[in-house]
Amino acid sequence: MVDCTPPTDAVDAAVRRALTEDLTPLGDITSALLDPQLVTVARFVARDPGVLAGSACARRTFELVDGDVTMQWHRDDGDVLAPGDVIAEVRGSLRSILTAERTALNFMSHLSGVATLTRRFADAAAAGGPTRIWDTRKTIPGLRALEKAAVRAGGGVNHRGNLSDWVMVKDNHLLGAPITDLVTRARAAWPGRTVHVECDTITQVGEAVDAGADALLLDNMDPSMVAQCVALVADRCGDGRRPLVEASGGITLDNVASYAAAGVDCISVGAITNAAGVLDIGLDIAAPAP
Amino acid sequence: MVDCTPPTDAVDAAVRRALTEDLTPLGDITSALLDPQLVTVARFVARDPGVLAGSACARRTFELVDGDVTMQWHRDDGDVLAPGDVIAEVRGSLRSILTAERTALNFMSHLSGVATLTRRFADAAAAGGPTRIWDTRKTIPGLRALEKAAVRAGGGVNHRGNLSDWVMVKDNHLLGAPITDLVTRARAAWPGRTVHVECDTITQVGEAVDAGADALLLDNMDPSMVAQCVALVADRCGDGRRPLVEASGGITLDNVASYAAAGVDCISVGAITNAAGVLDIGLDIAAPAP
Amino acid sequence: MVDCTPPTDAVDAAVRRALTEDLTPLGDITSALLDPQLVTVARFVARDPGVLAGSACARRTFELVDGDVTMQWHRDDGDVLAPGDVIAEVRGSLRSILTAERTALNFMSHLSGVATLTRRFADAAAAGGPTRIWDTRKTIPGLRALEKAAVRAGGGVNHRGNLSDWVMVKDNHLLGAPITDLVTRARAAWPGRTVHVECDTITQVGEAVDAGADALLLDNMDPSMVAQCVALVADRCGDGRRPLVEASGGITLDNVASYAAAGVDCISVGAITNAAGVLDIGLDIAAPAP
Amino acid sequence: MVDCTPPTDAVDAAVRRALTEDLTPLGDITSALLDPQLVTVARFVARDPGVLAGSACARRTFELVDGDVTMQWHRDDGDVLAPGDVIAEVRGSLRSILTAERTALNFMSHLSGVATLTRRFADAAAAGGPTRIWDTRKTIPGLRALEKAAVRAGGGVNHRGNLSDWVMVKDNHLLGAPITDLVTRARAAWPGRTVHVECDTITQVGEAVDAGADALLLDNMDPSMVAQCVALVADRCGDGRRPLVEASGGITLDNVASYAAAGVDCISVGAITNAAGVLDIGLDIAAPAP
Amino acid sequence: MVDCTPPTDAVDAAVRRALTEDLTPLGDITSALLDPQLVTVARFVARDPGVLAGSACARRTFELVDGDVTMQWHRDDGDVLAPGDVIAEVRGSLRSILTAERTALNFMSHLSGVATLTRRFADAAAAGGPTRIWDTRKTIPGLRALEKAAVRAGGGVNHRGNLSDWVMVKDNHLLGAPITDLVTRARAAWPGRTVHVECDTITQVGEAVDAGADALLLDNMDPSMVAQCVALVADRCGDGRRPLVEASGGITLDNVASYAAAGVDCISVGAITNAAGVLDIGLDIAAPAP
Amino acid sequence: MVDCTPPTDAVDAAVRRALTEDLTPLGDITSALLDPQLVTVARFVARDPGVLAGSACARRTFELVDGDVTMQWHRDDGDVLAPGDVIAEVRGSLRSILTAERTALNFMSHLSGVATLTRRFADAAAAGGPTRIWDTRKTIPGLRALEKAAVRAGGGVNHRGNLSDWVMVKDNHLLGAPITDLVTRARAAWPGRTVHVECDTITQVGEAVDAGADALLLDNMDPSMVAQCVALVADRCGDGRRPLVEASGGITLDNVASYAAAGVDCISVGAITNAAGVLDIGLDIAAPAP
Repeated sequence: MVDCTPPTDAVDAAVRRALTEDLTPLGDITSALLDPQLVTVARFVARDPGVLAGSACARRTFELVDGDVTMQWHRDDGDVLAPGDVIAEVRGSLRSILTAERTALNFMSHLSGVATLTRRFADAAAAGGPTRIWDTRKTIPGLRALEKAAVRAGGGVNHRGNLSDWVMVKDNHLLGAPITDLVTRARAAWPGRTVHVECDTITQVGEAVDAGADALLLDNMDPSMVAQCVALVADRCGDGRRPLVEASGGITLDNVASYAAAGVDCISVGAITNAAGVLDIGLDIAAPAP
Repeated sequence: MVDCTPPTDAVDAAVRRALTEDLTPLGDITSALLDPQLVTVARFVARDPGVLAGSACARRTFELVDGDVTMQWHRDDGDVLAPGDVIAEVRGSLRSILTAERTALNFMSHLSGVATLTRRFADAAAAGGPTRIWDTRKTIPGLRALEKAAVRAGGGVNHRGNLSDWVMVKDNHLLGAPITDLVTRARAAWPGRTVHVECDTITQVGEAVDAGADALLLDNMDPSMVAQCVALVADRCGDGRRPLVEASGGITLDNVASYAAAGVDCISVGAITNAAGVLDIGLDIAAPAP
Repeated sequence: MVDCTPPTDAVDAAVRRALTEDLTPLGDITSALLDPQLVTVARFVARDPGVLAGSACARRTFELVDGDVTMQWHRDDGDVLAPGDVIAEVRGSLRSILTAERTALNFMSHLSGVATLTRRFADAAAAGGPTRIWDTRKTIPGLRALEKAAVRAGGGVNHRGNLSDWVMVKDNHLLGAPITDLVTRARAAWPGRTVHVECDTITQVGEAVDAGADALLLDNMDPSMVAQCVALVADRCGDGRRPLVEASGGITLDNVASYAAAGVDCISVGAITNAAGVLDIGLDIAAPAP
Repeated sequence: MVDCTPPTDAVDAAVRRALTEDLTPLGDITSALLDPQLVTVARFVARDPGVLAGSACARRTFELVDGDVTMQWHRDDGDVLAPGDVIAEVRGSLRSILTAERTALNFMSHLSGVATLTRRFADAAAAGGPTRIWDTRKTIPGLRALEKAAVRAGGGVNHRGNLSDWVMVKDNHLLGAPITDLVTRARAAWPGRTVHVECDTITQVGEAVDAGADALLLDNMDPSMVAQCVALVADRCGDGRRPLVEASGGITLDNVASYAAAGVDCISVGAITNAAGVLDIGLDIAAPAP
Repeated sequence: MVDCTPPTDAVDAAVRRALTEDLTPLGDITSALLDPQLVTVARFVARDPGVLAGSACARRTFELVDGDVTMQWHRDDGDVLAPGDVIAEVRGSLRSILTAERTALNFMSHLSGVATLTRRFADAAAAGGPTRIWDTRKTIPGLRALEKAAVRAGGGVNHRGNLSDWVMVKDNHLLGAPITDLVTRARAAWPGRTVHVECDTITQVGEAVDAGADALLLDNMDPSMVAQCVALVADRCGDGRRPLVEASGGITLDNVASYAAAGVDCISVGAITNAAGVLDIGLDIAAPAP
Repeated sequence: MVDCTPPTDAVDAAVRRALTEDLTPLGDITSALLDPQLVTVARFVARDPGVLAGSACARRTFELVDGDVTMQWHRDDGDVLAPGDVIAEVRGSLRSILTAERTALNFMSHLSGVATLTRRFADAAAAGGPTRIWDTRKTIPGLRALEKAAVRAGGGVNHRGNLSDWVMVKDNHLLGAPITDLVTRARAAWPGRTVHVECDTITQVGEAVDAGADALLLDNMDPSMVAQCVALVADRCGDGRRPLVEASGGITLDNVASYAAAGVDCISVGAITNAAGVLDIGLDIAAPAP
């Protein structure tokens, strides 16, 4: 399976920002009312079925709130969760646990939501044929690295990471120059880098294949037209290496299998990052001992 | 209407972060292939009905990408959008517009998604009676200030901003001390500050009212039990000022009216910030002139 | 007693900034002249009587300068200090201790100064009657969270943390709309949140009470007029809950008891944060061993 | 006169931090209640006599809060203020002016407090003889650059800026090596850089002069002993260049002239930065027009 | 030509850091001695032949130091400079110009050094055949984006931007798994992304071609062995698309043409970023007028 | 020897920036293909002779990438390295070691390059006479503190750290006022601080000595003219303390000894920081065990 660990610098920075926005300026004024000697055990528990992601953020949250709190993890990012599964156990000051609770949950429930919806799309697509679920750049601003890791936790794969990563000629770039020109310029300007072309028509598919694109984005086509494009690509490329074919636009859990069946390599879904909702995870806290 | 402008420091910081994650390290390598002299006009257009939010982030995105791009705004945060409505018009370099496009859209579509779902809850609740939709601390880490502003744009109101804002005694705090003690301690420790108590039973409602809480969170009760609690509160308080009553837990678009009808002041919904999805907004770009 | 721990994120950020401003760009060029093998013991000692605050900042300073230095604390924030009291003992490299010394002292002496003056106001007020000393937003820019924690260490209580915290209608807001309107708008816009009204006259006091304010700021009144206002409030509210009454403006150690005697709940004093001076704390360093 | 402009990067960073701590997460919830169309004129007015500092911070505060607010300045940093003097005039949205008010005032009143106390020390010293008032590293953490600029505004001069600036051998460094050794090492390690030696006895003064120190800090001596040291220095140095002589420790407005009369070049006073209090400056706001 | 503009966020952040390190804490204490009314004209002039880069950093430096200084640019990044060429003209306060001078020059001379050495390698390689000069990840920490833009200004092209960009299997990865396995895993894990394989032997070249690598890094081979590898690749790939072939290791201005003649597509040179030295650029300042 | 440890805050900040630029947004996508269980030993080895610097940055890089990796250091900053010398040994996950490798090497090879060239200049100068090699402000933006520490590691000494450090009157300042005036103003404005004057002619040398400058920069003079200036200084100063004399401009490894022989105290060389190239250091990684 693809590694789904997010970069440590991204985790640290995101958690620090989240704590600052939750604690400025007075800190947790409610937990401050509790006896600081009270210690307890708390368990992160899945309430709904899903896939875990975001554990590194939860871990970092507790480290930054109170270095004396200890955590024991029973599940890793990418693990399937059933309702009632204990994800991790936390021991330490009741005050600190309550202060960290919401931040840790906000990360884990959002990122597990991303992983869970990704897994649902991946499973639905598998019914149609072997294809992969790709994410997009439609991520929540500031959380790109974490959401892309969550997509991997859900069994999806990552499309380009950002604008700097690979060349992607979209319809609006074609307002500036034709496909062939842009592919040629891209090869010259950025050798070795993936050149990906959005095609809205079968004519453009032919043009992009001839221009030597590495990948084709078939945007907003129905499955039968997608199948025609896939066939055209196979036909033009023969025994040689053929570009990766991606379907995109209007993909839902209901129709994803039919796109997979049309033979594409990847299906990209903006919703897995920008409309995934949350996985319901709770923190069950035992009565503390003084 | 409530002002729905987000703090400028929060806008600036969030947009800088988003641009950095999208442009590190090489910048927009695709737009770099276009002739820098091409200038064009582009229009942000609503594709679905909804409520606008996030315009300040979109504006700041273009300012930071290219100070020479100009924008003209036809809609403000909080405005209702019909499909096809032109939100804003952008003029300038095609390159710059394409570089800024996704960041601007990620902010506007996410935040308008928050505003739109808030409005839907507010409208649904209104069918049951006069009540307000409250957000929660279940926000996307790093975007608290922007999402809370989007909730206001959608006609909702903001619950406490963070842990530092007002005292909120929840079930887990009661593991450490009883309601009456915690309210008393809160009054002593944080005079002048709202003291809010979560109640899971009608007995706790009575206890919290007697303790002098400013607000009660009725958590995970059905509408009829909520109505009983509302009646109890009215009864105990008589002519005096009574605490604000909030319902929370399991609230959906389908049942929100019945909670409103039960007489609560506010209904808090985590989903409006953490599960709102996006409002579909597009950027239509005209063919450029050299 | 109120918990007086500052948020860890605020401590970490403030200490990093302070070290950077003291060490850019060459580091501590004097300590660099000493033999790096010299190790010693040093003691933070109170030179004057007062109340301790800022210990978390001192601790973080040493951690960041040299993780091998160890500290043992004999006093906590909020403890009363007599001249000669040993606050903490530090063991480690003489170089590192000298590098960290001034930064640690700048935090502790400033924040203990805040705590100490707060305690003096609290003690002086107690002679007049039961009242609390409230801080204000008149804090040193960048140190709000730390100073507000120091106020709590001194036995004071925290007024609103910032502009986002609760509604406070001051004289200048009344240029825009009358009291009753603003209170009504505040209730609608920010349900559940404290609404505080500044009153410069007894007429305004009546108006604010009738409007349902949660708290009244009696600004720049003499104690006898304050007492009249307190009586008016009691009279209007009868058995019901009455707004918190705050006196402010021109409060000194000499007159604070007379304001307390006038029956107010809280007395706010800007001077405890912006004019507290420092508590004299020194670092006594023993002759090092190689 | 010495230039008293603070570095622009320090102003910008400090103001951004101050606004974030005052506006996180909901912004100014009180001003949000006002009609956004109301515009007004406001005047920063000195309430007490003093010396202005911090104007760059006030200017930057308004720029960041609302770029449409305009300011006209009638006084500059370093100007003497009489009660009633109009420092600056601000025109723009009432909302924005109220949001920025406290942050702008916190900077200006604190920094003008520093400038004002510095001027008082400088004036008091002048009665004793020609000497200069020096600041120290006893500054508020995070505000070093701004406070040092305020000292210059008050007619003081800046001692070393930080630990990286010049070599300063203090009593605790002498625990590690004798004066002569440390001066020798300093000359070798940091050629061209000021070497300053703290002397607690007249014997040490002789030793430091012989070692070739550039400056001597006479710490905690009474004026007559200071005078003896000054004479010793003059005697040893003859026609040659003699080290700068500084007095420090226990200097007050009452005794500063006697130290000046003792013939020192500079008198350093920690209180001008860490115990200056504030200069009372107010913002008078005119009734707005819609 | 390839666009050589660096991302604006990278420019802004790097310039702010540079100014802070040069101005902390007292600012420019020498320029502060000059009359603030003096205004002048200054010209950035090339002293040696080369290629310009870094102009955006110089522009941003002046904007941040003093917004009233104006600049007129006569040369753009990527332009060839002859000794004596005027790059830009600056008008404004003498003080501000002197404060900004070194920071602006440090950026421009370093980045123009990178562009100039890149151009020299590109020109030298062109004598051997059509090939491109590629940079590496051997960049100065913190300046990756700016140096990569300078490489483009010099006529070079950018290899992967960072570790997140494309897959690059190097000798040390082969300690963990064989080439074929790693290429297969890479295709599965990161579809659509360039897979680049370092080959130290001709056997590995065959293996990598068979595994379907997109690019081959021939490391530390002499030109004749490189030519054999190029022939092998051509032979194996026939009419189909063949992987890009890169030579690397021990490339100098003297031997780069022989590598180009061996038929590689790209030659990567760490020295163009980490050993480029500086282009000598000066700032000629005219006598100021008051 | 001069201490050559860089300030910890500068190390931490620079390493965090470097990791973020190398890992945004997806992390190390190649190492992610390896089995996470593989652990290994790796050795940093010098390939060329030189002087070590930057070890603190390498250490911090591994700490931030993976806290479980352990390091054992065999050489310290300032140590002379022979080809083949093992600098440090790293044990831990192969993945983590590969992720950290380039960042650690970029710091160490650049900073050791600075130390090595400094040492070469120092050694070459020593052949001419006792003099010191001084660095300049011609440093790579953002790395000033680290490069200045590397200069010390190479046996050089640090000139002023930045514009805030000491007064340095250069030719362009003389456009605004004559030497004598500027020295006088500097003494008044910044007592105790080094005043350094650039002299392009022997007349200016005399003027600067008479004005009482602490140091003289003889810019772009040939060694015989430098010797005349040194003699003039000695003559004017007699038995008294004489200013430090620095030579600068056009100094190379070939001519540095002749400048040393001319009797200057210090010779400043911009090239040691801005044109030092890198010291070749490699990381040899052993085959991992699962």
